[in-house]
Amino acid sequence: MIEVFGDERSGNCLKVKWILEYVHRPYRWTQVEFLDGETRTPEFLAMNPAGQVPVVKLDDGRPLAQSNAIVLYFAEGTPLVPTEPYRRAQVLEWLFWEQYSHEPYVAVRRFQRLYLGKPDDEIEPRLMERGNAALARMEAHLRNRPWLVGDDFSAADLCLLPYTERAPEGGFSLAAYAAVRAWIRRTRTALGLDARTGSGPGGDPS
Amino acid sequence: MIEVFGDERSGNCLKVKWILEYVHRPYRWTQVEFLDGETRTPEFLAMNPAGQVPVVKLDDGRPLAQSNAIVLYFAEGTPLVPTEPYRRAQVLEWLFWEQYSHEPYVAVRRFQRLYLGKPDDEIEPRLMERGNAALARMEAHLRNRPWLVGDDFSAADLCLLPYTERAPEGGFSLAAYAAVRAWIRRTRTALGLDARTGSGPGGDPS
Repeated sequence: MIEVFGDERSGNCLKVKWILEYVHRPYRWTQVEFLDGETRTPEFLAMNPAGQVPVVKLDDGRPLAQSNAIVLYFAEGTPLVPTEPYRRAQVLEWLFWEQYSHEPYVAVRRFQRLYLGKPDDEIEPRLMERGNAALARMEAHLRNRPWLVGDDFSAADLCLLPYTERAPEGGFSLAAYAAVRAWIRRTRTALGLDARTGSGPGGDPS
Repeated sequence: MIEVFGDERSGNCLKVKWILEYVHRPYRWTQVEFLDGETRTPEFLAMNPAGQVPVVKLDDGRPLAQSNAIVLYFAEGTPLVPTEPYRRAQVLEWLFWEQYSHEPYVAVRRFQRLYLGKPDDEIEPRLMERGNAALARMEAHLRNRPWLVGDDFSAADLCLLPYTERAPEGGFSLAAYAAVRAWIRRTRTALGLDARTGSGPGGDPS
């Protein structure tokens, strides 16, 4: 059985949980406490020398890391990954943008508040500025489109959801981002999250 | 004809140049001076709302951004992107890792020195620490392997090359990374860079 090493509070790890449930692949979840050094043990580093969660071990024991690479691995062959080359490239564009221009601000600010307990006035101001720039970009894009790529729900929506809906835990207000809030509800429905888990670990994003 | 909007000093932009030349796709290069605000004009933002180079405009005018997404778009169907699902996923794992754990330190430190002219003692020390951690990870991985993924040169090698070989411009020493230096030479040869351009814009990495 597939084994996931992750932390359910981490949006990157939630992506893996969600794709596995979406494609109906059974898995075993092992909670990893990275603040306690559990990603720095020799056993963990043998799986992922980068020392980061999530990691999956496939049925045959081969490890795979990087949340977005894991999502693409399991989503390939489903409608979540378009076969048309340009649409596929657009999904990848959003995934790389997420890791470079969204997660390092929106998720990192949340991490500093939620995991490290930092008060707002001790957090680098650029995290708020750049996080809001990322959310504003999504808002402009989603104002006249239901999904991030083309006319259909895709891996781009799945991978952008966790940290976007958890942005308020990082001190970001979604009040000005009505299109983003509507997209969050659509994406949660597409993933079957509300049916399965109530409002989910991120709470009500509205 | 394909149009590339980029800056030849930027490793992210060089990836696009290299893949297009590798697959023999003719292109027109438009130099973009982002320090002069050229990525913030309404025309540029219409192509890439993220306001970043590189961007390509395909033959039909459709834009595509994010260096690694662009490389995958043009490399798909060549041996640079494995068809075997696990190998393909490993290529993606390196590409996401590059954008999250290598570029933000190795490339950003180079940017601060080379573009902004910051003296070393005004640069955040964690850029050096984390950049060296990224280089050390590559060194450990390449010590008993010729290429980053499997037995063959792939898009992972292409995408990791530009900022790794330019790390010395960011103040990083490659002296302790003999396997990385040998891999740089192999990768430059595989890309035909030395044949075409002499030692290349990054100079001799050894």
